[in-house]
Amino acid sequence: MQRFNWNQLDQAGQQAALARPALADSAALAPTVQAIIAAVRQEGDAALQRFSQQFDQLPDNPLRLSQEEQQRLLGLLQPERKAAIELAYDNIRKFHAAQLPRDIEVETSAGVICQLKSRPIGSVGLYIPGGSAPLPSTVLMLGVPAQLAGCPRAVLVTPPGKPNAIDIAPEIIYAANLCGISEIYTIGGAQAIAALAYGTESIAKVDKIFGPGNRYVTEAKQQVSQDAKGAQIDMPAGPSEVLVLADAEANPAFVAADLLSQAEHGPDSQVILISDSSTLLDNVEIQLAAQLAALPRGAIAAKALAHSRAILTADLQTAVAVTNAYAPEHLIVQTRDASALTEQFDSAASIFVGEWTPESAGDYASGTNHVLPTYGYSRTVSSLSLTDFYRRFTVQQLSAQGMRNIGPAIVTLAEAESLEAHANAVRLRLAALEKAGQNTAND
Amino acid sequence: MQRFNWNQLDQAGQQAALARPALADSAALAPTVQAIIAAVRQEGDAALQRFSQQFDQLPDNPLRLSQEEQQRLLGLLQPERKAAIELAYDNIRKFHAAQLPRDIEVETSAGVICQLKSRPIGSVGLYIPGGSAPLPSTVLMLGVPAQLAGCPRAVLVTPPGKPNAIDIAPEIIYAANLCGISEIYTIGGAQAIAALAYGTESIAKVDKIFGPGNRYVTEAKQQVSQDAKGAQIDMPAGPSEVLVLADAEANPAFVAADLLSQAEHGPDSQVILISDSSTLLDNVEIQLAAQLAALPRGAIAAKALAHSRAILTADLQTAVAVTNAYAPEHLIVQTRDASALTEQFDSAASIFVGEWTPESAGDYASGTNHVLPTYGYSRTVSSLSLTDFYRRFTVQQLSAQGMRNIGPAIVTLAEAESLEAHANAVRLRLAALEKAGQNTAND
Repeated sequence: MQRFNWNQLDQAGQQAALARPALADSAALAPTVQAIIAAVRQEGDAALQRFSQQFDQLPDNPLRLSQEEQQRLLGLLQPERKAAIELAYDNIRKFHAAQLPRDIEVETSAGVICQLKSRPIGSVGLYIPGGSAPLPSTVLMLGVPAQLAGCPRAVLVTPPGKPNAIDIAPEIIYAANLCGISEIYTIGGAQAIAALAYGTESIAKVDKIFGPGNRYVTEAKQQVSQDAKGAQIDMPAGPSEVLVLADAEANPAFVAADLLSQAEHGPDSQVILISDSSTLLDNVEIQLAAQLAALPRGAIAAKALAHSRAILTADLQTAVAVTNAYAPEHLIVQTRDASALTEQFDSAASIFVGEWTPESAGDYASGTNHVLPTYGYSRTVSSLSLTDFYRRFTVQQLSAQGMRNIGPAIVTLAEAESLEAHANAVRLRLAALEKAGQNTAND
Repeated sequence: MQRFNWNQLDQAGQQAALARPALADSAALAPTVQAIIAAVRQEGDAALQRFSQQFDQLPDNPLRLSQEEQQRLLGLLQPERKAAIELAYDNIRKFHAAQLPRDIEVETSAGVICQLKSRPIGSVGLYIPGGSAPLPSTVLMLGVPAQLAGCPRAVLVTPPGKPNAIDIAPEIIYAANLCGISEIYTIGGAQAIAALAYGTESIAKVDKIFGPGNRYVTEAKQQVSQDAKGAQIDMPAGPSEVLVLADAEANPAFVAADLLSQAEHGPDSQVILISDSSTLLDNVEIQLAAQLAALPRGAIAAKALAHSRAILTADLQTAVAVTNAYAPEHLIVQTRDASALTEQFDSAASIFVGEWTPESAGDYASGTNHVLPTYGYSRTVSSLSLTDFYRRFTVQQLSAQGMRNIGPAIVTLAEAESLEAHANAVRLRLAALEKAGQNTAND
């Protein structure tokens, strides 16, 4: 790790210490992805099959994973993994079930009823990365809220597992089935996003697309979300990142393990350690070296560590301020009073409190969602939650009394905005009510 | 209005009857807007002042509206308008206050605490269109939720009101002040969006930008939202639209007035009337002609009406189905059992129920928000609500017991995903707990 002493840095140095890498220029990828999307829109299934041959070495992709195939693959699932998926499912479900939106009704003026209602989005598409490391945990993170929200249609796409086979990990199928999802397509990449956004002969269009992916997937999601005829997406994407804030009392082995579990995601993973103790920083370095040697993905992690940063601050308050300035996706707090300190963080997407709470807990099974805004987006973008699977809309109803009560103010405001027809829609009604009132009075 | 008989249309004809106009090609505007944004990023205030001279004919724009100017302009406010703004403010506040998010805490497994917390977005920028028709109502729609959420900083930008003057409508200033906003800049257009997204010497950068605008503003919002260094935005934009569903019992004068209040927004306004009664359609046409003649913005409304559509359906159920297929921004329901029918709509952004509820009510003073997804986006995008001014994030804390309870499942899942460092972060902790347990047992 690169070591920095925060108080000895000038402003430019401090900015550099917290700088994120420039995102891969999407301009370079854009035309390729555009062409893939155009091909899928124009040729449908035929394009999907051609891309599957080209990118997955799968000559005859049936696209939809049949019930028979699903059952066959499920037969390969180890019972221990099945139980672990069930435990994770239960916890994720409990936490997300507590987020069920409530409809709201308020009588704002006498006779003026306003409602805010939430209803599930009609159809959602879940993209699950596959290939070398299939991610059943992501199936749960997307499938559980889709199930709880009651989205009428939820479909899953994931690239085939290995060359020349439609096999996908049985863990993915099991997790999907637990979430009530049986509509599964063995496609991946930008072409899968295009199929979800626009539909093909085999795959009906969806309204909103969720899930992480590689640069092509990310670029494709961006492009289809810019087209009103395409689909909405969950959130903007960037490389995953962790910031560990630890003091002298933290266990260096735990801290090192947490840094490495972010680093193994990929060479572009962002890893930052902040402490007010140089001894802790030294001890973590020693632990990192020892643990790295034993990791199967050690080469990847080493690359990420090469540009990771260890920042020494004068005190814990400065450490908190630096953390808030960075706005990390994952924030692990391993300090004496971790709980109390947690109240002071105002920009992290998910916070892991205390020595027994590694990032892995939230990645898999604590119950929180692991689809999180990264790259500083957490300052404004929310962590994925149940509400992302709903649309909110309003309903209002005025009684005659309600119209009498607020109508004159509406006329005044419409006149102030020079919108005479708006005013007239109210004037006509007020006149009708006055006439009716006079008639009643004359009865 | 163009008249269609739904059941006599083939599928292509039905699609055409509900087709929205193609959006102005953003590709044509994009370079101009890009250049404006680049100039503001590079030159800051100097660029803002140059654009103000060029677009607003204002040679020496002070940019920030001083307290003295605000007070001077407030002196021009008519008392009746002041009272109307206060009534609208109260209703909007009541409805949005009912939407305050609650923090959630769930113990998902013994010793595993998960929280979902909402905190206000740090700084928000509100764009208010100005010029020929200033929109104080939009100030309330954006300013009230920003105030309720407690966003630490809320700033307002609006173009100067007339050539050679920084004067903006006193209604806008009064509404802003009610919402606790005194940081007001007299700038508009793409350059105002650029200033909010990136900051200048006079205007500090904001995190998220809200509010409607012309094509340049919309394109600028789109562009800055695509840049991680820019700003988030409220929602995608399109031309405003209304669909009125009316049966034989509806008042044709009310229906015509509601159609016209949408039509007067602009020549590209979308106006649709659906009914199971051809008599109603005939009578609305007569009313439209009569009311149109008296409107100051009649020329604009006539243009919008020229491409508006009146659709006759065989029955009310078909009318509901057609409405759901269109997914209107505003849906006005003027039928015998309007309330009961309302439950059947699954895609409108805001619904106006019954004869005493014109769209004007929601535009100004019922309490609902008038910033709504249009152009079919309401199928997935929510109407603006208090939650849009918050960021949600998660917190989790495992006790030693919690780690013992879910740790083994995490290890299993991490292994299934070939993420050994993730597994290791848990294995180390489980080993530490086991050792501690043995030590305790040996005591």
